[in-house]
Amino acid sequence: MRDFSQDHRWLSINTATVRKQQGAEVPLARIIEQCAERGIRAISPWRDQVAAAGLERTARQLRSHGMALSGYCRGGFYPAADAAGLRAALDDNRRAIDEAKALNAACLVLVVGSLPGALDEARHGKPHYTDLARARSEVFDGIAASLEYARQVGMPLAMEPLHPMQAADRACINTLEQALDICDALDPGQTGALGVALDVYHVWWDPKLAAQIARAGQARLLAYHVCDWRLPTRDLLSDRAMMGDGVIELRKIRQWVEAAGFAGYAEVEIFSALDWWQRSGAQTLAACMQRYGSVV
Amino acid sequence: MRDFSQDHRWLSINTATVRKQQGAEVPLARIIEQCAERGIRAISPWRDQVAAAGLERTARQLRSHGMALSGYCRGGFYPAADAAGLRAALDDNRRAIDEAKALNAACLVLVVGSLPGALDEARHGKPHYTDLARARSEVFDGIAASLEYARQVGMPLAMEPLHPMQAADRACINTLEQALDICDALDPGQTGALGVALDVYHVWWDPKLAAQIARAGQARLLAYHVCDWRLPTRDLLSDRAMMGDGVIELRKIRQWVEAAGFAGYAEVEIFSALDWWQRSGAQTLAACMQRYGSVV
Repeated sequence: MRDFSQDHRWLSINTATVRKQQGAEVPLARIIEQCAERGIRAISPWRDQVAAAGLERTARQLRSHGMALSGYCRGGFYPAADAAGLRAALDDNRRAIDEAKALNAACLVLVVGSLPGALDEARHGKPHYTDLARARSEVFDGIAASLEYARQVGMPLAMEPLHPMQAADRACINTLEQALDICDALDPGQTGALGVALDVYHVWWDPKLAAQIARAGQARLLAYHVCDWRLPTRDLLSDRAMMGDGVIELRKIRQWVEAAGFAGYAEVEIFSALDWWQRSGAQTLAACMQRYGSVV
Repeated sequence: MRDFSQDHRWLSINTATVRKQQGAEVPLARIIEQCAERGIRAISPWRDQVAAAGLERTARQLRSHGMALSGYCRGGFYPAADAAGLRAALDDNRRAIDEAKALNAACLVLVVGSLPGALDEARHGKPHYTDLARARSEVFDGIAASLEYARQVGMPLAMEPLHPMQAADRACINTLEQALDICDALDPGQTGALGVALDVYHVWWDPKLAAQIARAGQARLLAYHVCDWRLPTRDLLSDRAMMGDGVIELRKIRQWVEAAGFAGYAEVEIFSALDWWQRSGAQTLAACMQRYGSVV
């Protein structure tokens, strides 16, 4: 296993971790500067942040710092209420692929979506349909369509299996095994065009995790995300802990991932409305760097 | 599939659903009366309620109403910080088996436990250990030991796979497949002594659900629990919805369960601190009966 205690070579910061600092939204350009100042060599930004900062301007800023993208957040959200919605999702994913390419990202992360309308507050918890098999089928077809374009462009797609507690509203791919089954169906040759973003937060509980990581291998492990599981967890989306402050066996999982051939970034992605998003960026980044070296 | 619209023959009320009424704790004897008055033929009570009401007194009251127990809540919580803790858990499970027998329950439900100390508020989210494989091993050994005694007594044990969001603190058995693997290892003859309590809340998201229900078959399906998944879910433990108010495909899952041979009770178990526990028992039981007949 790689020694992370000597430098921060393989640390990446998902910008969701520091997009809110002391409760206020921080522009992407500022986040990039904060990371560059500390010698952090990679980030993973979100589409809305890039749109606000400007795609070309962001690409230039990243190049000027020699900063890599461990991934780009995010494509996906394929299921829709009707055919027009399905087409719109495919179009949007093509744009996401183009943006990821312009930014030279290692992969486009796919949060695949689930019951359409589930996140629409105006629908009061009543999605357009509740047929989970249909959502999964629409996701499969959507990834197949995106993959065709992504292959042309040369942008790997990384499906992110999300925790089952987000199965209704954010992603109906909920285990690594399920994601790998889709990879095997759509990319049997293991070309590197399709794989997974493995986030410990979503998969740490899985009794089949070690075996499925070994199955994934280097060809499918396109991104690796770290944070921790807080006890108690007070919110299903935004109560992640800093690495070392929860119960996830981070060293054990990284050992499995590296034994399978993964040699990329450990990307810190912490949604923490009640804690880290209330702190200064300096404090949060210092904690990321310290914990990367000591517990990841 | 059985027709539930004509009568309430197969409705059971888990007493957690109505143990709080208008915010106040209600004694078990009163809950039993409320159910009996409405022609409800089965309940599933909790150990602390039975202890407070008296075991013999409760058994007599149930007999006088001809009321069955679809299950008894609950055994389990095997993992412990040390050998003394492990022994204490086994002793406690023997008592739970005896109580279940005295009450003539269909099965003892096992919420198997996970990282020891995780629910202890004084430990501030730091369990005695975080080795999930160790917890799973202690659960396996614990069930094996309980099963030996349960076979002598003649009380089936029903492991309940819990939702992965409860993997750290309540149960490290988190999928039906994982539970059935344990059943196959400890009870290869499918004697009926060991099986599962299938709660739709915990398993509805599982991409392997249909296949694993078919695998379980009649011999392993010892209990079936219903409620619904609320969007958004505001709490990881106590924000379940009434059947029909969420996104779980209840009819589809019952079809799978009955096709596998299950012919027992649909037990309504709703932890709902913000909603149903604030209402009257009459209102909650009326809703259970109505939804049992229309959407379960």
